[in-house]
Amino acid sequence: MTAFEVIATDGAARAGRLTTGHGPVDTPVFMPVGTRATVRSLAPDDLHAAGAQIVLGNTYHLLLRPGHETIRELGGLHRFMAWDGAILTDSGGFQVWSLAKLRKVAEAGVEFRSPVDGSTHFLSPEVAIEAQHALGADIIHPLDECLAYPATREAAERSLDLTLRWAARSKAVHAARGGGRQALFGIVQGGTHEALRRRAALETTALGFDGYAIGGMAVGEPKPAMYDLTALVAGLLPADRPRYLMGVGKPEDLVEAVARGVDMFDCVLPTRNARNGQCFTWDGAVTLKQARWTRDPAPLDAECPCYTCRRFSRAYLRHLFVSEELLAYRLLSLHNVHFFVALMRAMRAAIVAGAFGAFQTRFFARYAVSSVDAPAE
Amino acid sequence: MTAFEVIATDGAARAGRLTTGHGPVDTPVFMPVGTRATVRSLAPDDLHAAGAQIVLGNTYHLLLRPGHETIRELGGLHRFMAWDGAILTDSGGFQVWSLAKLRKVAEAGVEFRSPVDGSTHFLSPEVAIEAQHALGADIIHPLDECLAYPATREAAERSLDLTLRWAARSKAVHAARGGGRQALFGIVQGGTHEALRRRAALETTALGFDGYAIGGMAVGEPKPAMYDLTALVAGLLPADRPRYLMGVGKPEDLVEAVARGVDMFDCVLPTRNARNGQCFTWDGAVTLKQARWTRDPAPLDAECPCYTCRRFSRAYLRHLFVSEELLAYRLLSLHNVHFFVALMRAMRAAIVAGAFGAFQTRFFARYAVSSVDAPAE
Repeated sequence: MTAFEVIATDGAARAGRLTTGHGPVDTPVFMPVGTRATVRSLAPDDLHAAGAQIVLGNTYHLLLRPGHETIRELGGLHRFMAWDGAILTDSGGFQVWSLAKLRKVAEAGVEFRSPVDGSTHFLSPEVAIEAQHALGADIIHPLDECLAYPATREAAERSLDLTLRWAARSKAVHAARGGGRQALFGIVQGGTHEALRRRAALETTALGFDGYAIGGMAVGEPKPAMYDLTALVAGLLPADRPRYLMGVGKPEDLVEAVARGVDMFDCVLPTRNARNGQCFTWDGAVTLKQARWTRDPAPLDAECPCYTCRRFSRAYLRHLFVSEELLAYRLLSLHNVHFFVALMRAMRAAIVAGAFGAFQTRFFARYAVSSVDAPAE
Repeated sequence: MTAFEVIATDGAARAGRLTTGHGPVDTPVFMPVGTRATVRSLAPDDLHAAGAQIVLGNTYHLLLRPGHETIRELGGLHRFMAWDGAILTDSGGFQVWSLAKLRKVAEAGVEFRSPVDGSTHFLSPEVAIEAQHALGADIIHPLDECLAYPATREAAERSLDLTLRWAARSKAVHAARGGGRQALFGIVQGGTHEALRRRAALETTALGFDGYAIGGMAVGEPKPAMYDLTALVAGLLPADRPRYLMGVGKPEDLVEAVARGVDMFDCVLPTRNARNGQCFTWDGAVTLKQARWTRDPAPLDAECPCYTCRRFSRAYLRHLFVSEELLAYRLLSLHNVHFFVALMRAMRAAIVAGAFGAFQTRFFARYAVSSVDAPAE
């Protein structure tokens, strides 16, 4: 099982270390998203070079193609994608709700049609655990229902109850199938209703998981609500277990959430925005679409030690991007993932030094929050 | 200036070494094509890892975007694309004939419209040399007229005469502009007419260049004609200068042309076919579209030491390819370029050992010539 140790705290912010069967993971940590057994455009060596210690895989996508049985047969997800670091998989729930067609939800589980080939699939708490056992990630998740925002109190409560019953079934089948090698995180849902979030945190904690994910955030609710609910839930979770804010987020969100006690994050932002020509720096985003970079010999970020910044000019990167050259997507993704990892590392160092408040002040004084495009889903 | 030394011969086949301002180039050599200042999907480190010593850049494409003046301002093509190995540029002639719109050819040069933005450009022998001086490649070429196949004897003769007059102007302007740091190759045209090819070889040689390209091949003529004309022209070129067969080719063409005395090659085949899921091995091509690879744990080529073959299974590479994941294009391009470089290296070793005949026999006994898709232009 995955062990977790808190090494230092500064206010609510925590620096810690997860120990997995595939190496240590220093927290707070950002997990690049490897939807289809690949962090888009990056090879395992690129991820190591960027400093990534853990990546996320999407059970939903892998279940549809190439199929979790195929991956099991080929030695599991680590071997399949040749990644020797840690892996976390989600349960597939979020994608069933956001991507699949013709869903039928029942107590047993959810039936849906594959957008790949139209075939019908059934995902239950038991199937989700079985699929994640086949994939073999270090950290796995129970199937949950993802509520659309906004939702009425009644709809949110009904959904939370289902998620909690599914969580109990997931835990039972994980134990019955001898899943102890893989850590099982619980997911705290509850929409934007404080009372429901409170109940979700307490009842999920009472079931007892190896770590806790905060789900259903960054789905359209106002930023202050997200920050407040994150603080509320994080404060109710056990101090000795890792806390993971699913699908978040922009650099400023990472800083705000770490300040509220979150340890783990994932988001498509660094790789997706790279493919749109947007690059993250300590001053905010650089958008390579802009003609102003056409003759700029400077690197994207003079402080960044990544391959892209050590070797290439903004002029060259813009040329690749406007020419739709494949190399653009890799070089910009490499830089962006490097930046997100470096941001987490800087936060961790500040927490260990007891200087997280000063870090926040410095970060927000310099970073242009408004410069980042929202990623199109 | 670029020096060339023949180290060994075996029949007409030659092993040699070009010494450039950007390192040595062992011949026979395959030059990956870096059309827009990037070998599609590969970074300079990938090219080094694949063993490439020299890449090709297309003057036509770079002239249109980002413009040779911009590249000059940014320190030249080597620095722009961060490639410290050797570079060869073509004159732009071939692309003007195959890609540009609304051409008007006159004695002075050729006027054409850019497909990028519709702007009008004029390419003359003088402009082509000036642009290539701005780019700063180690080896450059005079503007030539590229004849469509088939062509009448009269059309071919008229075209050859123009190419020869342009060659003389190119040599003069290269010298007048002090281009001695860059090697200028002559281009032997003449279509499929033996007598014209013979005259082209002799008159181009009489003008005197640092090396000789054989142009206008692999444009639709039958394979035996290409091999025979290549042998004819190579036999008429000075033994102490490198010979470059432009735009060729498939692995079997490389072997046949080396046997006929050619030293240098370029082709989009390894990178373009990689993007179509086709991978080269010593047994012929592996086509990842085929469902038979879905659960195959073996590497593309068990003998290949490239990153792709050391780390990934055919099953994973097929998964990436059918999922249209960007990583597929890079990993397959990396392998294919590695294979082409390894093929040239094996030929060189066989020539040095005086065993090129045995190499040819072994190669053709094993390699399935028919397995390779023709690249769509």
